[in-house]
Amino acid sequence: MMKLGLFFEGCGHHIAAWRDPDVDAHARQSLAHYVEIAQLAERGKFDFLFTADTNATFGPDDADAWARTMAASRLEPITLLSALAAVTQRIGLVATATTTYFEPFHVARFFASLDQISGGRAGWNLVTSLAVAEAYNFGREAHASHADRYARAHEFAKVVLGLWDSWEDDAVIADKEHGLYLDRAKLHFLNHKGQHFSVRGPLTVHRSPQGHPVIVQAGQSEDGRELAAETAEVIFTVQQDLEAGRAFYADVKRRAGAYGRSPDSIKIMPGVMTAIGHTRAEAEDKYGRLQALIAPEIGVKQLSAYFGMDLSTFPLDGPVPEPANTNQEVGRVKVMVELARRENLSIRQLYQRVIGQRAHRVVIGTPADIADGLEQWFTAGAADGFNILPLTFPGGLRDFVDLVVPELQRRSLFRADYEGHTLREHLGLPRPLNRWSTSAAAGLRRVS
Amino acid sequence: MMKLGLFFEGCGHHIAAWRDPDVDAHARQSLAHYVEIAQLAERGKFDFLFTADTNATFGPDDADAWARTMAASRLEPITLLSALAAVTQRIGLVATATTTYFEPFHVARFFASLDQISGGRAGWNLVTSLAVAEAYNFGREAHASHADRYARAHEFAKVVLGLWDSWEDDAVIADKEHGLYLDRAKLHFLNHKGQHFSVRGPLTVHRSPQGHPVIVQAGQSEDGRELAAETAEVIFTVQQDLEAGRAFYADVKRRAGAYGRSPDSIKIMPGVMTAIGHTRAEAEDKYGRLQALIAPEIGVKQLSAYFGMDLSTFPLDGPVPEPANTNQEVGRVKVMVELARRENLSIRQLYQRVIGQRAHRVVIGTPADIADGLEQWFTAGAADGFNILPLTFPGGLRDFVDLVVPELQRRSLFRADYEGHTLREHLGLPRPLNRWSTSAAAGLRRVS
Repeated sequence: MMKLGLFFEGCGHHIAAWRDPDVDAHARQSLAHYVEIAQLAERGKFDFLFTADTNATFGPDDADAWARTMAASRLEPITLLSALAAVTQRIGLVATATTTYFEPFHVARFFASLDQISGGRAGWNLVTSLAVAEAYNFGREAHASHADRYARAHEFAKVVLGLWDSWEDDAVIADKEHGLYLDRAKLHFLNHKGQHFSVRGPLTVHRSPQGHPVIVQAGQSEDGRELAAETAEVIFTVQQDLEAGRAFYADVKRRAGAYGRSPDSIKIMPGVMTAIGHTRAEAEDKYGRLQALIAPEIGVKQLSAYFGMDLSTFPLDGPVPEPANTNQEVGRVKVMVELARRENLSIRQLYQRVIGQRAHRVVIGTPADIADGLEQWFTAGAADGFNILPLTFPGGLRDFVDLVVPELQRRSLFRADYEGHTLREHLGLPRPLNRWSTSAAAGLRRVS
Repeated sequence: MMKLGLFFEGCGHHIAAWRDPDVDAHARQSLAHYVEIAQLAERGKFDFLFTADTNATFGPDDADAWARTMAASRLEPITLLSALAAVTQRIGLVATATTTYFEPFHVARFFASLDQISGGRAGWNLVTSLAVAEAYNFGREAHASHADRYARAHEFAKVVLGLWDSWEDDAVIADKEHGLYLDRAKLHFLNHKGQHFSVRGPLTVHRSPQGHPVIVQAGQSEDGRELAAETAEVIFTVQQDLEAGRAFYADVKRRAGAYGRSPDSIKIMPGVMTAIGHTRAEAEDKYGRLQALIAPEIGVKQLSAYFGMDLSTFPLDGPVPEPANTNQEVGRVKVMVELARRENLSIRQLYQRVIGQRAHRVVIGTPADIADGLEQWFTAGAADGFNILPLTFPGGLRDFVDLVVPELQRRSLFRADYEGHTLREHLGLPRPLNRWSTSAAAGLRRVS
């Protein structure tokens, strides 16, 4: 069965979504709006809600351009998903938290707590920070190099996983008579001392019904793929082209195998923006109206941010130059440049093709067209499922839930109801063994 | 009118609460349990829920003793209160977050987001970290000195308040026609460069219905009082003695005046543990049964943690020595030592008097006795209200809501219903002016 994530975002995923007449542009920081979206997605049996994140708005030079977009306004995802945990029952809750500016103890704790609160529905999207604007909010003058960020991320993940194992499943005994709350032998010190972190542990949160939160990653670069192959359980990827998507899929599954992991233990879910109409013409029209609302200064600005260089000095209708700065989203920029070269796009044509949808593939058409577009990649071995980016919220999501989901169910590609209660159960991921209970068999339990 | 906070804690506040036969000792990490408590407190018209926090469990030397308590197990408060925001309507939500191991950008963002999610009901309990066990989880070998922690806390608060002002109230215009989401002139860079932090801003979260979260503090030391007088809006304090409580109250209000603040702009709320019975004998019995369940090793261990020294080497029934390490909870330890000297208590007697209730005042008796105990301090100028610590949850809270609250209402000491919707409205605190909108009058708006 196909897995479906809902990429969850204020007014919608199209960069001009907030200008759509049917969208409430002030709802971006309203809990009621997100409750509506979350409950709609749960009615549609989505595996999870997925929220991106950034710890910055923009710099002084960019402020005038960014003020034209909704990008600066964002609820913090851990608080938002915690709130939604209380008003949903089944849907998974995946939040992004950066390894670049957090401490691993905090991240381990936030997500373990969300996992408890939600009864085992949490996921952590492990990212490294991209925007130099974030560095300025955390006392740095510049952001770390791509390689340094990944080195830190790798050690960070190791610490978080270690802390999540610091309580064995049955550590709480609550023996009132003898006054023993915990089985001391089932709580463990991590005693991690590495290049970036020194963390003793244990965590303060019990092990959750699903063992620990699901690890999600989005990296597409060489470093990103390698980190994902070792630690990720879900990969949210940007893929425009079926053959490239199949190659990516095969490559990551192969790399996972090199770490002794089965291909099923890592789910690959490309992002797909959906523009849905009762007819193709209606869908094209919905999409075209939003595309026309992208102001050129925003298009060039956002493309410049991806490329790490100022593209406003190049002719708008001239060729796309080579990206100067490969410290940004390396994998995603590569996809953009390949697209521009393949189709000989100008700067204007490229931003129109990639900025509206954040470089993700767009599928436009009737519910059957959308289902075809998903089925094709799923059956071709390019995807285990998809992270869906509706054009607008809640309208674009309602169309997906009411029109596309039933079509996928008719084709037996998607669940009729949730099979279980935890995010791992939805995704068909095994409940991870605790390192201490497994090593117990070898007599190593009391190492702590 | 008296203000009431509910100090919110798993099984109850008495250190042996989890051993009470009526308590579900496994509920400590169950959302349903906390939803029940929060909704009970809201029915009782409490001003806010208050959650303490620590980023550590214990060290290897202490583990056997601490395993006898529930202290190591704790949901993370920001996630927990965010979840409760979605299933409550009026009650305030105050979480603790340390200035010692967080970054101010993260704290500003978490609490601003909680404030948006809850419609203006958030409060931040600004603390410095006490336990050396926390240092070990964040790459330090020892924790900072009392003075250094307060210097950092002071700058931290300044940064957080600055970030909370980085969006003016009406910064979001969402002008669809002209494609302007924000009024650029109403978003501001902080550009803070200080001794501990360098933070550019702006924040990513809009200004909330109450302006920004309420600032709560608990410090009792000289440094703590001074920081509170400058920045706190609620003070949660430990006071055993009415005269000392009145002196503290007068001192803090006087210090606030020195910062140009009105006495009403800072609410002083001592903690009170309540043991409630239909008769005094029933209340004494409830309390006595829990007191008897404190194991001596726990009593000595916890007192040792407060004192910063190992008290197990001193005779249990001998006099209380001078605390060796004043780097711990300076103010609270001072209250303990004064109590021991005043009443000539042994180590055993002292831990029995202070450990069960975390050094807070205990009021034991019928609902009228409890109301008397609160009224006395309130009318004597020792308190603007109280942070209530029920012996057990939910039972001790249910007794308070069903029996004590009506008695307080009968005496016209406590509200019959919420007067407003935000935490500031409940507490009678003014909505803070944004520094940019006020300076606009002086032509300073475009400084950023």
